[in-house]
Amino acid sequence: MTAVDVSVSTRTVWRYDGQLLSEQEDPIAKETPLTIRLDGEEFATIVCTPSDIEDMVFGFLASEGVIREANEVTRLQLNTSRGFADVTLLYPERGKVMDHSKRVIGSCCGKSRQFYLRSDVRTAKTVMTRSRITPDECLKLIRQLQEGSDVFRQTGGVHNAALCSREKLLVTRTDIGRHNALDKVYGHCLRERVSMKDTAVAFSGRVSSEVLLKTAKMGVGILLSKSAPTDLALELADDLGITVIGFIRGNTFNVYSHPERLE
Amino acid sequence: MTAVDVSVSTRTVWRYDGQLLSEQEDPIAKETPLTIRLDGEEFATIVCTPSDIEDMVFGFLASEGVIREANEVTRLQLNTSRGFADVTLLYPERGKVMDHSKRVIGSCCGKSRQFYLRSDVRTAKTVMTRSRITPDECLKLIRQLQEGSDVFRQTGGVHNAALCSREKLLVTRTDIGRHNALDKVYGHCLRERVSMKDTAVAFSGRVSSEVLLKTAKMGVGILLSKSAPTDLALELADDLGITVIGFIRGNTFNVYSHPERLE
Repeated sequence: MTAVDVSVSTRTVWRYDGQLLSEQEDPIAKETPLTIRLDGEEFATIVCTPSDIEDMVFGFLASEGVIREANEVTRLQLNTSRGFADVTLLYPERGKVMDHSKRVIGSCCGKSRQFYLRSDVRTAKTVMTRSRITPDECLKLIRQLQEGSDVFRQTGGVHNAALCSREKLLVTRTDIGRHNALDKVYGHCLRERVSMKDTAVAFSGRVSSEVLLKTAKMGVGILLSKSAPTDLALELADDLGITVIGFIRGNTFNVYSHPERLE
Repeated sequence: MTAVDVSVSTRTVWRYDGQLLSEQEDPIAKETPLTIRLDGEEFATIVCTPSDIEDMVFGFLASEGVIREANEVTRLQLNTSRGFADVTLLYPERGKVMDHSKRVIGSCCGKSRQFYLRSDVRTAKTVMTRSRITPDECLKLIRQLQEGSDVFRQTGGVHNAALCSREKLLVTRTDIGRHNALDKVYGHCLRERVSMKDTAVAFSGRVSSEVLLKTAKMGVGILLSKSAPTDLALELADDLGITVIGFIRGNTFNVYSHPERLE
């Protein structure tokens, strides 16, 4: 319940019921800017839901290729009221990514890989896991993800991401930004040494290339969503060995890539 | 129909109908990386739907404060197969934003404005328009936005943004990225000198701080959405004078800020 409290505020709104406007109190999803500083230098500003901020910092740094394990952050100090996260790194040089936004265009890799950012090349590898899943497990996990989504029901404004075993959700995180929700899951797993072997990621939103790349960086081979993927996400899924199962609604779904993991 | 064609591809997927898997052809929303180069220097890489790319380049540069009018782009050359947009600027120094990602934290402005990026400070101003709208017009415009959304119906994976008069949608654009959809509308208006006076923005997705800021930069005073806003978006709306009307569903909606524009 803590996560719900810090993620939602209330506000007086004017409700139109088809005929009249009347004032009422409404729950509103919170959104806050957070600037990550590495050894005092500004690295990035993220706009996010103000819950599980530590997880998000770890997950974001791992996604960007700045850290590989949690112990590479030697100190994390949050100033939530001013919106700063001050990080001290074991290997400070990894935070000095001058070519942060440069694309890699090489003739050595497949068409869909041309657009990887440099940090992706450092951290996204083909996923070799032999994990498996059944149709019933897919349906059940997405149902659990939706049922657990209190903030979404209250405010209609957040995404959920979860790391799952075949039986249940292991870690669930929420954010107004879909990438942040997944970064929070990743960060939690790093900090708590949760094994990501033979797991799946369940995700409430559309599967874009960025969501796919984060799943690959986590080394997870199965990505479940109630929404649709994009073509670029699927090209990357083909390349990186990830099973994308989308449009999970009621008792039906689509398998978009690597169907061999479906039992 | 052109926009639909370039925005959707088809792919063989394995459809699970509750009992069996069978192959079928499915429409998939396209997503492609585009790197904007200013006078040969890489400026930003955007992942977007490959329709109305010129509009997106203009709208993105205006949102970032690099241009104010369309004629400040003296040349635009697209290489869509390689994913590059080469731009020559009338005022090249405006593209050299070294402190691109730095936040402004000043004691001179309100709480919610603390997090503005420098480019936002240059471009977001309080919206003074006296435009008005009725409940019926709100409902009608959102209905038109949804009806016009072919790609969404096909693929479940895109956002729509439109510039509207009180009577109808004037310009509609589609993208897998919600900010891109709005940048495309903005870019079109700049290029074609479409007046944004007394207009509204209708938007299919959640109203985040970034969507709100883009609306303010366009100088539009009314923002309509079928989804929910975040609290930060509403703080900015209070500050910047924008009427946010959200959760427009059926015959009902919520007015979140500046209700004086509702007739």
